[in-house]
Formats: sequence, C-alpha cells, structure tokens
Amino acid sequence: LRAAHPDHWMKAAAIRTLTLDAVAAANSGHSGMPMGMADVATVLFEKHLRFDPKAPRWADRDRFILSAGHGSMLVYALMYLTGYEDITLQQIKDFRQWGARTAGHPEYGHAAGIETTTGPLGQGIANSVGFAIAEEHLRARFGTSLINHYTYVIAGDGCLMEGISQEAIALAGKQELSHLIVFWDNNGITIDGKVEIADITNQPARFAASGWHVQEIDGHDPVAIDAAIIAAKKDKRPSMIACKTHIALGSSAQDTSKGHGALTDAKLIADTKAAYGWTAAAFEVPAPIKAEWEAMGARGATARTEWEARFNTLSDAKKADFERIFRMEAPKALSAKIRALKKDVSASAPKVATRKSSEMVLEVVNPIMKETIGGSADLTGSNNTLTKDLGTFGPDNRKGRYVYFGIREHGMAAAMNGMVLHGGVRPYGGTFMAFTDYARGAMRLSALMGVPTIYVMTHDSIGLGEDGPTHQPVEHLSMLRATPNTYVFRPADTVETAEAWEIALTSTTTPSVLALSRQNLPTVRTAHTSTNLTAKGAYVLAEATGKRQVILMASGSEVEVAMAARTQLEAAGIGTRVVSVPSMELFRAQDEAYRKRVLPAGPARIAIEAGVRQSWDWLLLGERGREAKAAFVGMEGFGASAPAELLFEKFGITAANVTAKAKALLG
Amino acid sequence: LRAAHPDHWMKAAAIRTLTLDAVAAANSGHSGMPMGMADVATVLFEKHLRFDPKAPRWADRDRFILSAGHGSMLVYALMYLTGYEDITLQQIKDFRQWGARTAGHPEYGHAAGIETTTGPLGQGIANSVGFAIAEEHLRARFGTSLINHYTYVIAGDGCLMEGISQEAIALAGKQELSHLIVFWDNNGITIDGKVEIADITNQPARFAASGWHVQEIDGHDPVAIDAAIIAAKKDKRPSMIACKTHIALGSSAQDTSKGHGALTDAKLIADTKAAYGWTAAAFEVPAPIKAEWEAMGARGATARTEWEARFNTLSDAKKADFERIFRMEAPKALSAKIRALKKDVSASAPKVATRKSSEMVLEVVNPIMKETIGGSADLTGSNNTLTKDLGTFGPDNRKGRYVYFGIREHGMAAAMNGMVLHGGVRPYGGTFMAFTDYARGAMRLSALMGVPTIYVMTHDSIGLGEDGPTHQPVEHLSMLRATPNTYVFRPADTVETAEAWEIALTSTTTPSVLALSRQNLPTVRTAHTSTNLTAKGAYVLAEATGKRQVILMASGSEVEVAMAARTQLEAAGIGTRVVSVPSMELFRAQDEAYRKRVLPAGPARIAIEAGVRQSWDWLLLGERGREAKAAFVGMEGFGASAPAELLFEKFGITAANVTAKAKALLG
Repeated sequence: LRAAHPDHWMKAAAIRTLTLDAVAAANSGHSGMPMGMADVATVLFEKHLRFDPKAPRWADRDRFILSAGHGSMLVYALMYLTGYEDITLQQIKDFRQWGARTAGHPEYGHAAGIETTTGPLGQGIANSVGFAIAEEHLRARFGTSLINHYTYVIAGDGCLMEGISQEAIALAGKQELSHLIVFWDNNGITIDGKVEIADITNQPARFAASGWHVQEIDGHDPVAIDAAIIAAKKDKRPSMIACKTHIALGSSAQDTSKGHGALTDAKLIADTKAAYGWTAAAFEVPAPIKAEWEAMGARGATARTEWEARFNTLSDAKKADFERIFRMEAPKALSAKIRALKKDVSASAPKVATRKSSEMVLEVVNPIMKETIGGSADLTGSNNTLTKDLGTFGPDNRKGRYVYFGIREHGMAAAMNGMVLHGGVRPYGGTFMAFTDYARGAMRLSALMGVPTIYVMTHDSIGLGEDGPTHQPVEHLSMLRATPNTYVFRPADTVETAEAWEIALTSTTTPSVLALSRQNLPTVRTAHTSTNLTAKGAYVLAEATGKRQVILMASGSEVEVAMAARTQLEAAGIGTRVVSVPSMELFRAQDEAYRKRVLPAGPARIAIEAGVRQSWDWLLLGERGREAKAAFVGMEGFGASAPAELLFEKFGITAANVTAKAKALLG
Repeated sequence: LRAAHPDHWMKAAAIRTLTLDAVAAANSGHSGMPMGMADVATVLFEKHLRFDPKAPRWADRDRFILSAGHGSMLVYALMYLTGYEDITLQQIKDFRQWGARTAGHPEYGHAAGIETTTGPLGQGIANSVGFAIAEEHLRARFGTSLINHYTYVIAGDGCLMEGISQEAIALAGKQELSHLIVFWDNNGITIDGKVEIADITNQPARFAASGWHVQEIDGHDPVAIDAAIIAAKKDKRPSMIACKTHIALGSSAQDTSKGHGALTDAKLIADTKAAYGWTAAAFEVPAPIKAEWEAMGARGATARTEWEARFNTLSDAKKADFERIFRMEAPKALSAKIRALKKDVSASAPKVATRKSSEMVLEVVNPIMKETIGGSADLTGSNNTLTKDLGTFGPDNRKGRYVYFGIREHGMAAAMNGMVLHGGVRPYGGTFMAFTDYARGAMRLSALMGVPTIYVMTHDSIGLGEDGPTHQPVEHLSMLRATPNTYVFRPADTVETAEAWEIALTSTTTPSVLALSRQNLPTVRTAHTSTNLTAKGAYVLAEATGKRQVILMASGSEVEVAMAARTQLEAAGIGTRVVSVPSMELFRAQDEAYRKRVLPAGPARIAIEAGVRQSWDWLLLGERGREAKAAFVGMEGFGASAPAELLFEKFGITAANVTAKAKALLG
C-alpha cells in the first residue's frame, strides 16, 4: 500500500507518528487504534468530511464521532493536522496532562470540534443515532439548503460488544437513518487477546439483520475506503463499513493486544517510523505533508461560506429562531406560559399524578418550543410523554417530534445526548425511574459533558404498587443526587412540576431528572407565586402557626404526607413548618442566609421520602440540624408487590407515623 | 388447533383462565403474555421439562426462566397446576397482594421453584447464560450422571430489544452453550403498539449471526413446539425457537397492546372463556385437567429418585463436597488460609495496589475453593482476576474456571447472578469501578434477590489517572452504599482486602462489591490480628497518643492519606485517631456501644475519600458528630485526565490539606 499510494501513505503516517510520539511522551494511552484506523480517517477527511476547522461550530458540518474513544490521539492528530485552533502542537505534546485539552479520552467541551465525550464503550455509536435523528428532523424542518450533513462514526470491537450498541443499531435501522455511516475497526484484538476468545459474532450479518447497508473492505486501502463511503452515501439505509485493519500497524506489536495499549519503547517507535519511511523528528510533521492536511481543512471554508450566504437569505425571524435553538435558548414566551399554567392550577388545584402534571406542562410547552423532541422507552402511556401536536418521527415523517425508542433505556439516553450535542433540538425521554439503572452509563455522560438532556422518570417510588420491588426505586434518588452536575427534581404537585420543567428547559449545561409519581397527588401550591420556588431547591410551603417546634421536610409524593402530619401536630398544639424540597442541588446552591431561614437551628426535623435516607443526612444532621432531634421516615430496604396505598401503610410512610416520631423527638 | 388437539387445548386453557381470573382479581397485571405462551409452556412441561415439584431444589433439574417476567402468572399457573407446595390456589387468588408469594413479577426466594427474579427486561435471558455456564462446568466436573440438564427461557420482544440481550446472546454463542434453549415469544406487540414502530430486526438472523441454532414455528401448534424442542436439544449450539404467537389469544384484545396489560373486563373474560370452551367457575380447573397437570408434575419423581440413587453411590467426601457447594458454604480451610495470608502480609508489609492484593488473595483461595469461577469484562490484566490454576472456560475446556466475558459488564453481572442461582459455583467478575454504571441493572438484582455475587471493581477513584473522568468513579461508592443489601468494601491494604474477600466468599445472601485501587498502597495493618476487623465495618487503626482531639476516617487508598495527616497532627501536638472504614454497611450493623467506642463524641472529625461526600454525612454529622466540628476531604465534581499523584494534589486530597482542615476545625 505504501508503494501504491505514497502520498496517502505519508498523510496517514503523520497520524501514526504523532500518536506514537504523544503516547510515548505521556507514557500512557492507546497507540494501536489510531495507527490501525489512520487510513480510513485520512480518506474520510480528505475526500468526504464536510468541515471547516475555522468554524468548528458550523451547524451544517458533518459530525465525526470516535466511539472507540481510547483512540483519542486519532481525533487530536486530525484536529492538529487540519488546523483546529484549539488543538495546537503543544496540546499534542501535553497529551493526557493536567489542564490539556488533549485528555485521555476525547472530552466534549475541551476543544471546539470534539463532538462528544467517548471512552465508555458504545456511547459514541449510540450518540450518533441521536445526531442522525436530529439531522433528519432539522433537514425536514429547515430544508436541505440549511441542513444536509452526515454523521460518521468509528466504532471498535468493544463498542459492538456492549449491549448499548444493539439498542443503537436496531433503532437506527428502524429509523432508516441514511446519513449515518459507521466504520467498524475490525482489528480482531481486545485487551484480553483476540476477539474470538469472547465473541464470534458475524457483525455484518448482525447489522444487516437490523436493516443496515453493509460493506466489508480492507481498511488500509484508500481506494476501497473511498468507494465504500461513496456507496454508503448512496444507500437509503444507515451504513456499516467493516474495515479489516491491523491494530498498531507497522509496529512489532501489530495484531496483538499489546498493540492496543501504550507503545512507549523507544526502539519499537524508531523501528516503526523506519517502516513507515518517516524520518522527521518526534512531533514533527514535514511541511509538505502538513500543507496537504491543512489544504483538507481549508477545503470546507467554501462550503461553509456558501452555506452562510444561503442562511443569510432567511428572514430575520427565521434566522433568529435558528440561532436561538442552536444556542439552546428557550423562547421568550416560555416563562409566561409556565406562569399562566401555575396560576391556573393553583386555582383549580387538580389532584393528579405528577406524571400527568408533566403532560399538562408539555401540552403548554411543546406548541411554543418546536425544538423539543419527546419519546419514551415503550412506556408512552405511563410516562405521559406524548402530547397531541408532536407527530411520530419516522422514515415517513421526519417532521414528527415523538420518537418511539423501543425498550432501550440506555440507547434512548445516549441518543438524547447525541441530539443535544448535535444542536437545534431539545430532547426529553421517559421510562420508569427504577430503570435509571439501565440508562446510567449515558446519564452520567450527560452530567460529565454538561448537556441538558431531560429524563422523565415516572413511577418514582413504592407508589408504583403491584409491579413490585424490581420496578420500585428506593436508592435511585440518592444515587442521582450523588452524581455531580445533575438536577434531580421531585415535584410535589403540578405547580412544582411546571417549575421543574421550566428550569430543565432553560438549563444549558446541566441534565435534569424529573422523578414523577404514578399516583395522584393533591395540589399543595394553592397560593400562586410568580416566582419559581423550585429554583430555590427547598422552601417553606406551610408555616407553623404557633411556636415552631418541628420542621417536616419532604419531596414529591411525601409532601402530602408531611402536610397531613402538620395538621395533626398543629392540632396537638405543636407548631410545625413544612419545607418542600424539590431539588437538593438547587438548595445547596442558595446562600447560607436563605438556607438558614428555611432550616433554622432549634426545631426537631423529620425528613419524609419514599426512598433511602442517605441523601437526607445532610439536611437532617447538617444545616444546623442535630442527631438527637432528627428522624427519617422512608424506606430501609426494597419494596414489595401490593397496592400502593397499602405499601405506604406497611412501610410506615404515613402521617400518623410522622406525627408519632415528631412527638417522640420532642420528648 | 382447539379441534386438532383438544387435550392439549384444555391444558393450555387452564393456564389462560387462571391468568385471566388472577389478573381480574388483582385488577392489575399482564394477561396477554401467559395467554400467548400457554401452548409452548404446556408442551415444554408435558414433554420435556425435567422437574419434580416435590423437590424444587433438586440440583439436576432443568431450569425454567421466564425472562419476560411481567407474564408472571404463567409461572404461577404452571407451579400451581403441577403441584408445587409453595404455590397453592390461595396464592393464585392473592396474586399481587401484600405477603403473597405471587408477586407482580416472579421474585426469587418467594417460592421454591422460582429460579430467578425477572421483570427488568433482558435479565432472565442474561441470567440463563450463567445458568448454562454453571451446568456445563459442573457437568464436566461431576460427570453427566450427576449434572445433565437444560436451561429453558421464555423471552419477549422487550428482552430482545434491551442491549443486555445482545451481550447474553453473543456470549452464549461463543461458548456454544448447547443446553440453553430460548423461546422467543414473537407476538409483535409491545406496550406502545406494534413492535415495528420501534424495531424491524430480523431476530432469527441476529441470533444466527452469533452462532445460535435457530428455528421458526407456530407457537400455538403443539406438534411444532415439540419437534422444535427435540431439534434444539440435538443441536450443539444454543438454540432459539422463534414462536409466532398471538398475545392475549382468544380474547377481543388479541394482537393488540391492550392485550399486553391487565384484562379485567368481566364480559371480555367471559367471552374469552367461552371461546376456549371453558365452563368452570373462576379459579376452578376441572379435576381431569388438573389431574393431567399433576401427572406431569409426578413424572419427574422417577428421574429424581434415580438421580438420588446415583448420587448416593458417591463417596461420603464427594457427597459432602457437592452438598457444601450447593449450600454456598465455604470450605473449612478458608478461614485458616486467610489468616495465614494476613499474618504474612502484616509481616512483609508489601506496597501493592489493592487490585494486586486481591489477586494475592485469589491465589490462595482458588486452589482450595474449586467452586469459584472468575472472569473479567476484558480487563483481566487490570482487574487482576486471573490466577494460575483456573484454566480458561470454553467449548474445548468446560473444566476451565475463568470466563472471558468480553466487553459486556451488564451481561457479565447477570450471568454471574445466573451462576449463583444455579448453584454449585461461586462467581466473581471484574471491571473498572466506573463501569458499575453499565452493570447496575444486574447488580441491583443481586441485592434484591439476595445472592452473593462478587464484583471486583478496580481503578476505584481518580487514582486511575490519565484515562480521565469517564473512567474515574466519584459518585459510585455513595451509589452502591445507597443500595440495600449490598456490601461495599473499600479495603486499605492487602490485609483488609483478604478480610473483605473472606466476608464476600462466606456471604450467602448479600452481594459484595470490592472497590480496589489501581495505585500502590502501603500495608497499614502491620500488626497481625486473627480477628477479621473488616467485619466490624470500621475500626481504630491508629490511636491518638496524647489527648484525642481529632478523628480521621477514611477508606481504601485514602487511609494512607489519613495516616500521613495523623503523623503531621501528632507532631503538632494534636492527638489524632485514624479510623479505617472498609464497609459502612457492616459498621452500621454493629451495636451502639461498639460504634461509640470507635466514634466517641467530642473530637473533630474529618472523612477522607476520593469520592463524593454523600454517604459520609452519616459518620460526620451523625453517630455523635457535629456539623461545626466536621469536614470532608474528597471530590466535589468529576475528575480529570492527568497522572494520578498530580490529581490527588490538584483535588486537594492530601495529608497537608487534611492537617490544615483539622487545625481550622480546632480553631
């Protein structure tokens, strides 16, 4: 190949040698993958990828996603070579060092041009389905002159072994995402040895079984790579190109699991460079080769300026709307609509499940926020995620805004991340809260990347009832509250639900989890406030009438329990304040003075939540609380299968129990 | 079919009508699935399943796993009809009620004969791979006269859409698990509508791509069902039988998503029974039909008594060993071996990573506990899970005790659950701790079922270093500690690692997570104690020499930091106790007197752990602690990509920082 395509060879060698040098300098990393896929990447960037390093946020660029994120030097090398401002040669030299943009795995936000954070395997390919859905939808909405691009993915054996990849592949196949093209780095090697020690799957057959267009090529032959991409673009299905490659190509570690990791031996590196015919010093790319790469980078400028010209022919209103949705800015009307809804429900005081409240909010929101895309992992009627106006997204209706994700919580979560990352859409998706467990891998990445994906998690406690403990979350609220940069909302009624949605829909850097009840709850916020009290995290919902001896803290469905206990305690002459705590994260963000006003020292405190205690210790024992005057009413273990009302009774989450505990604390 | 096979029809109708009656009485549940799969289940139980309702724990029984757990009435009906003691008619009548064994989803432990808890979709089929691995291994170990049975699974569309099923299918295919037979309930319906709204996958092609034997049949034709099972048993591959069925067969809700749920309408039920030709009263099975079912149940007694006769020809020692491993009892030698190892390492005081410590323990344990089966999700060299003597489990070596699970954390966890549930083996498996996120669905089920699966989670903090925040757990310790019935061990050195392993290997009802360091740690337990101090959960590792003013609490790699801070504080004349906290769950289980001895009121407290604070609030602010005299040194957000030592420095997890905070608390 070197002899047949000398020019191509040296361009690809630039990626390979930068990888070798950076990994050697860091004394850690993964050399083999960039060395194996350098040919594919070179052809993709030279002949196909529509990108402009000078405008890395251009809305109509092709997206390039390295699902096999451990091969991060491939991305960094490509960005440096083609001239992305954020990735300088110094960044390459600082690979994996403190403060560098060139982290061990590609991190979204570190450098413009890194489309998503990858490393946890399978996430990238699952994100890409979301990217491609967003592209299809926006293409239908704005027309091909404004949106018409491809999503390219490099996935490794690890990505394809992870279950999430199946969810992604099947969803993409059903949705006929023709602008999605996946290169499988078929090198036959994993960390533990040959792939065949753990897998004999015929991957092309597997993709074909889910409706994909499939090709198999030599992943080092530039002519074959180019031809395959051309064929993939022509086909109406998503495309998988199986690229037979040699991991750590050209080194003595080629085709071995050693080649997967960090190749740092000086002699091995020297020998490998010699085999490439590469004579430049470490980190040096000869000027003619660098110039060829920069020319690839420059090529996209024309397309981008032509696109800008077309964009500028739009009306000012359309331009502003397009730019607004890509800035993830909510429409101005949102806050007034939310306020009006709050006012209505404070007056009418409906008794509905907060999952229904959520639907009521969405009925108001979706018509004025055309960028929302809703969905559910096959629990639409239970999650109440579908509103009248959305329409079903599908091959025959790309304008549809509701996605039937199938029974694929993890794939849904990762696809939603991909949609947010693509830009121009704002996804939310539902499942039962207990199945947070299935989606965790992607939910953590929402938080780590700082993308405002919205998770509609209904049936948030034993209130789920007869389906029993497998479906009843108990630890999940604490789990999610332990996760950095995640809003966990557990609204008590429709008003708080509307407030939580408002925060979630205006957040630009934090994902939101809405924990919603299955069972009906009374409206507790019957006095209208235009202020978003949920934004305070916790607030005084009902004040003690006499001397304040007890503070009851609760969230969600247990606020009703707290209110009932307050009635009992007040009747017994015990002044009782109720504090609603829809979001611990937001309360933590308030200043000390506010927190002290809500939770002064002195009164006994009881927290009530149909989950485990762990995340409440802070508010019970800290924030001026005291162990001797604190109690918790909630769950100590898993739930059970029985009607919901009985479960609350049996597990002691009742006003009577709260009242008894309060009296005991007061002695 | 009713006309062609009247006998079969009425037997199957018994399942269908019991389902209709039980769901109607509960006013909740899922009618359609048992109604659709009644024919397959009837043929399986009548012609193939090797079982004895009077001996539901018989080691060599066939296992029947309902992966589509929402169809729980299928299992309950089968158990009642064939005469399992635990499932009486009253239990059927109490379906989904408080205290009943007939929970909404099948719950392991509720009734002998329920092989595993299902409901979270895909878990059952993934468990079944573990069941089949255990069977293959024990068959090789004990011979076909003692172990030679099948694992039968019913999986639905939901199971097959969940990513975990791909991990299971691919692993089973690679492992050529010929005694695994999966019936796919191909009814084309999910909660949201037709399967095709979310999936167009050709499931037979997908299974075939991973090396399965595949058949497609009419799932209501008893002759076809029988023939397919016969063919499946003959084939050397795992077998998938695609059963085309009608959900809610015979009712007006047949073939609709309404039929998936609870059919409770009296007229619908009456009409359906009429269509079946069923005239008996609610919950009544005519005696001749019940007798036929009981005859099926009685059939297995002969096979079972023959098996017992063969078993009784074994030597007493072999019998005892067989019974011991099925009782999940550790060998007597274990405790002495652990003690000897502890004594050695207390003396030699190696400085090794606790993942290496874990390997040192396994090197001692595996040779004396032949029932252990180790494995890793493609991180063998990093998790240190492989010891010399194990051998690789595979089609050519069923005696091998090490499983290369592939890059499949969720599938691994569920397979391990299946192995424990099968009995006779004790699995442990490794991955990076951050990928707990991928395995959560199955890890929660270990806890809920109360099975002692062992998770070897290495690289348990920012100590992982350059791979960066995607690979660095910060919330996971709190997440796992929030989960009921889960031991979370974070040992500080080799001695604590040995103690943690001893507890994990002798636990019979609680899973264990071992959180282990990547980086080397000094031996802190240099004074040998024969007592297992880790079993106390927390204990005084180093006492203050002067007046006790400070208590430093830490786990794992941060115990070293605490000890260094103690040296600094003592040098400054501040008496400092160090409490090692390898397991919060076990400390919580100690009596108040012990807890008070370890954590008396008075001294300032600082907790040190390279994770988030949440689970420490209890020990900082509670247990006689006070907010004004408590501080935490750990992580507030996600980690970063850089060398580990620098990360500890940058995130302030250092002795100097602890010392400064202690001094500040003392004023």
